[in-house]
Amino acid sequence: MQTTNKTETKLSTLKTHLTQINDLEAAASLLYWDQATYMPPGGASARGRQLATLQAISHTKFTDPSVGQLLEDLRSYEETLPYDSDEASLIRVTRRKYERAVWVPASFMAQLSRHRAEAYEFWVKARSENNFALVQPYLEKTLEMSCELASFFPGYEHIADPLIDFADYGMKTSFLRTLFAELRQQLVPIVEAITAQPTADNSCLHQFYPENRQLEFTIKLIKQLGYDFQRGRQDQTHHPFMINFSTGDVRITTRVYENELGQALFSTIHEMGHALYEQGINSDFEGTPLAGGTSSGIHESQSRLWENLVGRSRSFWQFFYPQLQAFFPTQLKDVSLDKFYRAINKVGRTLIRTDSDEVTYNLHVMLRFDLELQMLEGSLEVKDLPEAWRERYRHDLGIVPETDSEGVLQDVHWYSGQIGGMFQCYTLGNLISAQFFEAAVEEHPEIITKIEQGNFYTLHNWLKEKIYQHGCKYTAAELIRGVTGDTLRIAPFIRYIKQKYGQLYQL
Amino acid sequence: MQTTNKTETKLSTLKTHLTQINDLEAAASLLYWDQATYMPPGGASARGRQLATLQAISHTKFTDPSVGQLLEDLRSYEETLPYDSDEASLIRVTRRKYERAVWVPASFMAQLSRHRAEAYEFWVKARSENNFALVQPYLEKTLEMSCELASFFPGYEHIADPLIDFADYGMKTSFLRTLFAELRQQLVPIVEAITAQPTADNSCLHQFYPENRQLEFTIKLIKQLGYDFQRGRQDQTHHPFMINFSTGDVRITTRVYENELGQALFSTIHEMGHALYEQGINSDFEGTPLAGGTSSGIHESQSRLWENLVGRSRSFWQFFYPQLQAFFPTQLKDVSLDKFYRAINKVGRTLIRTDSDEVTYNLHVMLRFDLELQMLEGSLEVKDLPEAWRERYRHDLGIVPETDSEGVLQDVHWYSGQIGGMFQCYTLGNLISAQFFEAAVEEHPEIITKIEQGNFYTLHNWLKEKIYQHGCKYTAAELIRGVTGDTLRIAPFIRYIKQKYGQLYQL
Repeated sequence: MQTTNKTETKLSTLKTHLTQINDLEAAASLLYWDQATYMPPGGASARGRQLATLQAISHTKFTDPSVGQLLEDLRSYEETLPYDSDEASLIRVTRRKYERAVWVPASFMAQLSRHRAEAYEFWVKARSENNFALVQPYLEKTLEMSCELASFFPGYEHIADPLIDFADYGMKTSFLRTLFAELRQQLVPIVEAITAQPTADNSCLHQFYPENRQLEFTIKLIKQLGYDFQRGRQDQTHHPFMINFSTGDVRITTRVYENELGQALFSTIHEMGHALYEQGINSDFEGTPLAGGTSSGIHESQSRLWENLVGRSRSFWQFFYPQLQAFFPTQLKDVSLDKFYRAINKVGRTLIRTDSDEVTYNLHVMLRFDLELQMLEGSLEVKDLPEAWRERYRHDLGIVPETDSEGVLQDVHWYSGQIGGMFQCYTLGNLISAQFFEAAVEEHPEIITKIEQGNFYTLHNWLKEKIYQHGCKYTAAELIRGVTGDTLRIAPFIRYIKQKYGQLYQL
Repeated sequence: MQTTNKTETKLSTLKTHLTQINDLEAAASLLYWDQATYMPPGGASARGRQLATLQAISHTKFTDPSVGQLLEDLRSYEETLPYDSDEASLIRVTRRKYERAVWVPASFMAQLSRHRAEAYEFWVKARSENNFALVQPYLEKTLEMSCELASFFPGYEHIADPLIDFADYGMKTSFLRTLFAELRQQLVPIVEAITAQPTADNSCLHQFYPENRQLEFTIKLIKQLGYDFQRGRQDQTHHPFMINFSTGDVRITTRVYENELGQALFSTIHEMGHALYEQGINSDFEGTPLAGGTSSGIHESQSRLWENLVGRSRSFWQFFYPQLQAFFPTQLKDVSLDKFYRAINKVGRTLIRTDSDEVTYNLHVMLRFDLELQMLEGSLEVKDLPEAWRERYRHDLGIVPETDSEGVLQDVHWYSGQIGGMFQCYTLGNLISAQFFEAAVEEHPEIITKIEQGNFYTLHNWLKEKIYQHGCKYTAAELIRGVTGDTLRIAPFIRYIKQKYGQLYQL
């Protein structure tokens, strides 16, 4: 009786403390969201400082030895609970995050925050001016700091492992290298077979589509897919993202190009996929470390599942295309569903990762992954990165960027403060999305017909039940095992690609 | 040498610590701004908690004994510096705020934050349902907590004094009672003389003015007045306010009624007045307690100066009315400047403080001030407040609200968590605005002509130099003395009212 009361007090002390940290992190997220949407230019310098302050305070609070003591004191209680009970999961997941966080000194975190803000500013400038040299010293510093960050974690197998582990807990460089090599082997012949054929015509997407109408359509679309606007909103930004401040406030951002319909459409569905995950998390987890996606790879599997497996499918547009045509009658009245479907699934050897198709996308990702490893291993210097980039594009995609803006400067990731662990999640997400979708359709074969009828409930509900609600109660590996009864596999993705593009390109 | 270095270290430690607190407060402000502008309904409950967390953390950090020790250690250094040097001012103002803050336990602050959020929610509901009973228990708790808050400050003369002191440092109930009695004595005969005449016709303001056009016009207007959109922005909200996150990011909010042109016009100019003050603060003060308006009364003097002494003047509209007419030709082509000028300066015995005219406005304020004092003194119970409100409106304004929504529930102040110190600033602001404007025009008589020409530079610059730049380096009393060579006076306001309304109503 005495013990139970003490345990309850300790658990409640831990929860209160974690909620404080959660609130600081939510405030930092809002500072970021505002910076990316509405902040006037004059706010920039103070904003960087404010973000660094909040991150330093929450890091210090989280790594306070009292947290470690509470977790230690709760260990025997945890062992009496079922593994997947909410309380055991809270203690376990907190311990995992705590044990990782305590390796990193708060002073380093603060320094890193400041460097990130600065590097980002210079990347924006460098990219718009196509001037890699401008950001090179910052990227060198980033590489140095990434190595230092990794070095805080003793006993790693590969220097990238601790960095990968932040985003995709449990993943290792050695495993990913094998996985990616296998994927490449299976993918390259498909890419070659498709690109040997005449390229698809996607000019229908490049007519003039007014910004407001595009925004209106995407909002209408994602409402029908299940995004809850009572617990979210959509705003415009330069680089779309999903962000949440609580389980009741999960926002997305999008961008609109008036001569490129695909941008708003698919970036909106993509971010909505991330948001459905967060909106579907058990609201009892609010304010605790359980309230969040379990890994970057799993998160990306949800955005890619909705964007690609659903949002680029023929079944999906069988339902939505008449709505789209009604929205843009001048532009689309003479474009058939088949023509549109081919346009949004055009495959090509292109330069920009985020605009690339499902088939070549992983090639873009894997070359970045390799370059990250080379930099961390010391076999590639930052100054030689642009040339290495061009070389890999020549080799892997048969195309070379004419400018660094379209090359090594295109993605924010390295310039926002870390080299290592930044890209594997995209390919993991693609693989997992196919594996999950296959499992969903196996259990509910009617899902495809329902999609054709504009009914997304069965799929959404299955995802909620199997994945979303759990937040980060389960690790990615546990979740994949629980949902599919198997480990992470390449086969479902290859099957999906072969079937879809086999039909499209009569392979 | 050794001493100097130690002092420098201490000062720099203090500054770093203060900047951390500033950043937490800025984050809390952003949480609030977002809540009032873009937050989806689902975010509300977590948001209240997040705000309370940030406020509790910043309060705890600010009242840390190490801050007191640093301030103590810096005392001898401070004494070697000129009173109004930046460093002496920083130490002095921080000490003043610290000495006030340490009286209040952090646990009370956290409890108050939570109560505020809850009381606010119930006020929103109570007002929309015209149901005072719904919010009464929360208001009782607010009264209790306000008394408790005051009780932390030993040796006050009147229980309201500590609460007034938060907003208007150095002001006391006894002084304000005398000041307000004198003002009332001079004001009542003017109100009676005006309201004995036929009421002005302001129907031209109550035509249909499309929301977007109104917003467009207000933005165009305040740009010309000197509001810097590179360091600010305007968004819509229910209850307009100004808020800032740094000296480089000072935002305003406004509301638009499509059948009431005056709302958007004057609430925008009002909030812009607050914003010009904050935008004009010396940017060297960024991140320190010096970066902010020095008191609520002085802040309100700036909003009212721009809203009324400038924005409701004939000179102002001599310049802007043609622009307004061009914006709304259908509505205003047959309305002369004189007619418009009379419309926007209509005087009447009305129910709503924020919509009331310059002449009667202080009557609305002073009755609230008295009711606050009665509640704090224990001579008025919260349950009797609605009746006391009606009685005071009958007595002071000769009009009685039919509903509590138009009566005691109209203002958010008491329901957002404090009774006492909430209203005096409005009348102080009115008085000071006239006193400052008189001083400005005395020094630069050309100001009026410049306004007629749409040139606001001379006035804006004078305000920047005399008031804005100093932030809260000087107290309100010091500032008034410095700017006008006198103490706070009623006479300039009465002169202004008599002259302007004497002409309008041929008194």
